[in-house]
Amino acid sequence: MKKILLAAWMLLILVTLQSFSQNLNNIQLEHMRQQSVRKEINLPDILGYTTLKGDFHMHSVFSDGIVWPTLRVDEAWQEGLDAIAITEHIEHRPHREFVKGDHNSPYEIALPRAQQLDIILIRSGEITRSMPPGHLIAMFLDDLNALETPDVIDALQVAADQGAFIFWCHPGWKAQQPDTTLWMQEHQNILDKGLMHGIEVFNEKEWYPIALDWGLKKDLAILGFSDIHAVTSHYYDLTNGHRPMTLIFAKDRSEEAIKDAMFNGRTVAWFDNKLAGKEEYLRAIFDASVTFKDTGHEQRGKKLVKVQNHFAIPFFVTDNEGNSTILPAEKEIVVPIQAGTTSFEVTNLFIRSQENLKVKVNL
Amino acid sequence: MKKILLAAWMLLILVTLQSFSQNLNNIQLEHMRQQSVRKEINLPDILGYTTLKGDFHMHSVFSDGIVWPTLRVDEAWQEGLDAIAITEHIEHRPHREFVKGDHNSPYEIALPRAQQLDIILIRSGEITRSMPPGHLIAMFLDDLNALETPDVIDALQVAADQGAFIFWCHPGWKAQQPDTTLWMQEHQNILDKGLMHGIEVFNEKEWYPIALDWGLKKDLAILGFSDIHAVTSHYYDLTNGHRPMTLIFAKDRSEEAIKDAMFNGRTVAWFDNKLAGKEEYLRAIFDASVTFKDTGHEQRGKKLVKVQNHFAIPFFVTDNEGNSTILPAEKEIVVPIQAGTTSFEVTNLFIRSQENLKVKVNL
Amino acid sequence: MKKILLAAWMLLILVTLQSFSQNLNNIQLEHMRQQSVRKEINLPDILGYTTLKGDFHMHSVFSDGIVWPTLRVDEAWQEGLDAIAITEHIEHRPHREFVKGDHNSPYEIALPRAQQLDIILIRSGEITRSMPPGHLIAMFLDDLNALETPDVIDALQVAADQGAFIFWCHPGWKAQQPDTTLWMQEHQNILDKGLMHGIEVFNEKEWYPIALDWGLKKDLAILGFSDIHAVTSHYYDLTNGHRPMTLIFAKDRSEEAIKDAMFNGRTVAWFDNKLAGKEEYLRAIFDASVTFKDTGHEQRGKKLVKVQNHFAIPFFVTDNEGNSTILPAEKEIVVPIQAGTTSFEVTNLFIRSQENLKVKVNL
Amino acid sequence: MKKILLAAWMLLILVTLQSFSQNLNNIQLEHMRQQSVRKEINLPDILGYTTLKGDFHMHSVFSDGIVWPTLRVDEAWQEGLDAIAITEHIEHRPHREFVKGDHNSPYEIALPRAQQLDIILIRSGEITRSMPPGHLIAMFLDDLNALETPDVIDALQVAADQGAFIFWCHPGWKAQQPDTTLWMQEHQNILDKGLMHGIEVFNEKEWYPIALDWGLKKDLAILGFSDIHAVTSHYYDLTNGHRPMTLIFAKDRSEEAIKDAMFNGRTVAWFDNKLAGKEEYLRAIFDASVTFKDTGHEQRGKKLVKVQNHFAIPFFVTDNEGNSTILPAEKEIVVPIQAGTTSFEVTNLFIRSQENLKVKVNL
Repeated sequence: MKKILLAAWMLLILVTLQSFSQNLNNIQLEHMRQQSVRKEINLPDILGYTTLKGDFHMHSVFSDGIVWPTLRVDEAWQEGLDAIAITEHIEHRPHREFVKGDHNSPYEIALPRAQQLDIILIRSGEITRSMPPGHLIAMFLDDLNALETPDVIDALQVAADQGAFIFWCHPGWKAQQPDTTLWMQEHQNILDKGLMHGIEVFNEKEWYPIALDWGLKKDLAILGFSDIHAVTSHYYDLTNGHRPMTLIFAKDRSEEAIKDAMFNGRTVAWFDNKLAGKEEYLRAIFDASVTFKDTGHEQRGKKLVKVQNHFAIPFFVTDNEGNSTILPAEKEIVVPIQAGTTSFEVTNLFIRSQENLKVKVNL
Repeated sequence: MKKILLAAWMLLILVTLQSFSQNLNNIQLEHMRQQSVRKEINLPDILGYTTLKGDFHMHSVFSDGIVWPTLRVDEAWQEGLDAIAITEHIEHRPHREFVKGDHNSPYEIALPRAQQLDIILIRSGEITRSMPPGHLIAMFLDDLNALETPDVIDALQVAADQGAFIFWCHPGWKAQQPDTTLWMQEHQNILDKGLMHGIEVFNEKEWYPIALDWGLKKDLAILGFSDIHAVTSHYYDLTNGHRPMTLIFAKDRSEEAIKDAMFNGRTVAWFDNKLAGKEEYLRAIFDASVTFKDTGHEQRGKKLVKVQNHFAIPFFVTDNEGNSTILPAEKEIVVPIQAGTTSFEVTNLFIRSQENLKVKVNL
Repeated sequence: MKKILLAAWMLLILVTLQSFSQNLNNIQLEHMRQQSVRKEINLPDILGYTTLKGDFHMHSVFSDGIVWPTLRVDEAWQEGLDAIAITEHIEHRPHREFVKGDHNSPYEIALPRAQQLDIILIRSGEITRSMPPGHLIAMFLDDLNALETPDVIDALQVAADQGAFIFWCHPGWKAQQPDTTLWMQEHQNILDKGLMHGIEVFNEKEWYPIALDWGLKKDLAILGFSDIHAVTSHYYDLTNGHRPMTLIFAKDRSEEAIKDAMFNGRTVAWFDNKLAGKEEYLRAIFDASVTFKDTGHEQRGKKLVKVQNHFAIPFFVTDNEGNSTILPAEKEIVVPIQAGTTSFEVTNLFIRSQENLKVKVNL
Repeated sequence: MKKILLAAWMLLILVTLQSFSQNLNNIQLEHMRQQSVRKEINLPDILGYTTLKGDFHMHSVFSDGIVWPTLRVDEAWQEGLDAIAITEHIEHRPHREFVKGDHNSPYEIALPRAQQLDIILIRSGEITRSMPPGHLIAMFLDDLNALETPDVIDALQVAADQGAFIFWCHPGWKAQQPDTTLWMQEHQNILDKGLMHGIEVFNEKEWYPIALDWGLKKDLAILGFSDIHAVTSHYYDLTNGHRPMTLIFAKDRSEEAIKDAMFNGRTVAWFDNKLAGKEEYLRAIFDASVTFKDTGHEQRGKKLVKVQNHFAIPFFVTDNEGNSTILPAEKEIVVPIQAGTTSFEVTNLFIRSQENLKVKVNL
């Protein structure tokens, strides 16, 4: 009996010690792995619309990019986007010797991953011609292969027949417009034929102020996209910033609602802390983001005011005397402001190429 | 005359103002772009050898990776590596429907970029079989297509006939060794035939201590590699850490010298602040990195000592009383140390699975 | 006439050029300055209470700290705290040769700054004795000078007579409890006299699990504070973490409500991603923070689930099979979870020294 | 016998388990504490001199700063400085009600810490007057109390009699020079009397280009200092940048050698990636930092060149065609450069207020 007890005890010991013994087989150094997480971009919904974030200009190995299409979905999910389009060049496929498939392949490869991660993937492609008219992207297509036509107007018409939203890409790209960014007769023709509905004012790392004026005047959706070919986190500093993207004021979070918003020009382009678009949208975003609250204390004859920016876009404000202050994203500052009405320019909100949003605060 | 003067002045004005006027065409937001830079990893050269950093296990779209081969070169250059091998699975090509080319294609595509950036690219491939023997990588090959043989021993022999250095990959990978990490008869056979020259002790995010003991006992090169399929900066935190890699103590910075070093076992595996390998190399690295200097001041009966770690590997030291201190990479600390001889264990330097390097300091 | 015109033009030129000319007098390099901003800590309000964040243990130059009292307010504001107490040692003032004033001075110096920044500053002090009973902090005082009494019980009684909330500081501090953390007869006496209402389970960088059990059993408020003497951003990594603090579930954001909550034990201590306190509060925080949403897709026979953590505390969950996952703060992950009911332990939520919160999810 | 064996076994078990049992008394969360480390600033020694880094303008609670004097030493050590001066205002002590001691007290309090950490502490003070002449700092003093004189010239003369090096602080400070930064008659008088030996071109966050021209013309040492009152890491982003400081080209690392270097004008001011000073020093720093190496490969008709910057100062270079490139600190880039001789301006190296260093490279 005692022997049995002893044996049982010894077994217990061994089992117990075993559970404490060091693992020599395979130690998972999980802390060395970066967890794949989505970082939401907190933006206000405005004017009764849901604010969605989209990047509708990017490439994979299927044209001249260097990543597999599914990576575009993973990047977008991690960076807080709602919707993307992988927009291969129809006419330019430098990896063609090794990468086969047709113009619909990248969409079809990426779609299951997009569905898993709830990213809206929009079937789109880039019609890639010399200037004029340069490059145009057609979105919301049924069949990209139909865009392979010799004449650019034919290609745009084929896209339009599929119900496409079409926008002019990087109108100021120096490879195609080396000196002055021009709106040429060919662009007017395309517009007149109803084959242009939007225009990029930001592309990659570039900003075309003149294109904002054109877009506002000609009633085009104001757009900004990454045109990324490499890995986004290699090209942009995603810790402190983000890729160029477009805010879309949509009725709901669906491809259909995005299409409706884009055709109705409910967009704002966002990059480098700059928002470019219609005054009403920029004002609504500012008003929904920033609150001013008197602390009840004074500093050198001015009121000490708590200014809170509740959302992800910082604002750079300058008063009439030229004093500048940053209202940092999702943070609060306490600053002295003159009692009464103060007017500010928000110098990172562009309602025209050379005009910033003006706001007033009464304290 | 005066009219001409006036006109000249006005022209001057206009030209001058023009040069100050705002650019509305294309503003390059260069500050938003991350510059592509190489960050050198500062490590000491030891024992008369040059210390090179290599990662010889990784994938591209040509097997089950998600990036183009050239990106592997760019990553390696940015992360301070000297040499890489793109090691596609010979037998596993899930993107085969879209990605064509033969087993040499990834090497040939990446080579021009490697030459531009002075990264040593080694033609290599992964023989991918079920356990035993699991996966083995053959390096320094002439023709990868010859490895496509039904029998694994044949494939290894073909590689060996090309002069290959062959190593066993992730010996403790749970998909193939779910419980205990075992050295099987098949591995002994391969070793006996002269078809195994190295072994991974780190792979991806895993650490196989038992494999260090095997490697030291069987005179295999001790290796650690990333086996990266995604983007390295997505998988690892490259701001504060680095991918798994192997330090190679080579006669010079050349493919030939790397091959010589590997066949002669002059390697140490590095990951998660852990170095694993032969005692002589770990001791040489520690001694070349750390200096102790008496400040001439005292604190609570101990000498205040300036401890400088001149290189990129931090050291975690514990004295006989269990007091632990970090000697951070490329930094200096000032700490109290008992006068006389003090013994430390360097708990992140592994000279066996359960044995750390011991060092002494006399003050 | 033309001369005048010419002169006018020239004047215009000069004025214009002047406005473009380089400023050689004083260029403000504002981008080199860190803006003073408050970073809110997003936590859920629970059970009908407002969740406030307090640190009620810290020092300035008036005892053995190395900063001016106002800096404690600025730090607290920047780090998102709602309330602080500067708790100088009554009996230990090593800078006394140079720093004068009475025990109320630090409070009085810091108060105007606290009012400007809307930080609730609570007049408090640290009764600093050898063990037993060690150090105790008395809060919500009228006059700190009255605490200068030879006998510790007298000092506590004077504080209690002023309506003080009193808590035992760092009960496991090795300088006073070198081996085992003990609840001594003296502590029982103090408790029995009604002179102890709370206990620190976190202090500085230490965690006393046994004190959590005592606190829960003896109905003391569970507390965690920094006891900071240096600069908080020097001592803690505020980029990735935060100082030890206590969450207070208060009826509103006022000193009175904090006092009420503390006397009623509505507190949870927070440090190093650990929350320690009563089960009901930890469960309420978890439930208010995390949402599980079926994506409608599957992965290897499990449901793909979107798990969102809406607030600032990450959760470390482990299922019955030992699989661990992090739910990162204010982020979303997508993970496969078995259909049906799954039980988790939340290994960073401590409802006793060795017991974690258990949660279930039905999918 | 068996009972004894059993008892012995049980004892062994208990002891063994005990050693594995969880510590409930006091768990040191050391990973939550930031280790106090020195981060060396790697700069080249030039022209046979040792390059030292000094900040000789800062405050503590003894004038209008908010930290204890010893913290200034700790900050300096951590930030890689070699030498500092704590320069309290002789005439302005707003904490005087609480902080006592004489003008030598801050030096005497900080000195033991400076000796431990091998920071050269220089006894200095700030003569603080209205404009003209504004503020001047006297260094290398024997007794600061002697500077308390009604007349500013007397104070400067007393300092000079102690062998002081005297410099004009923030000559363009708007509180004293609101419009144009002027060299007044009073400054000329002080210079003529031999009572001014240096001038700040950087102070706090300001840059006075005109003061660089004055300094070079009048043979004053070119200086840049922080004038820090708060905590340096609160005021500056020390992760990506550094405080304003002066590089001193000294015969060795000693107070005597610093004094010699300053009296002989062997200094360069450094802030915001800008170096300001004599051409010969800036050229020597650039030449010692940057190497160009032809890779032997070409890109679009230009040579691909490996450009390495071995030290801590980045350089911003612009070629004759206006193309700009950054040579990041301690990193390597590979860029295409025209064969032959290329001229660059290094736009962050100022040899006069409006003139940058020009360099040539032959490839």
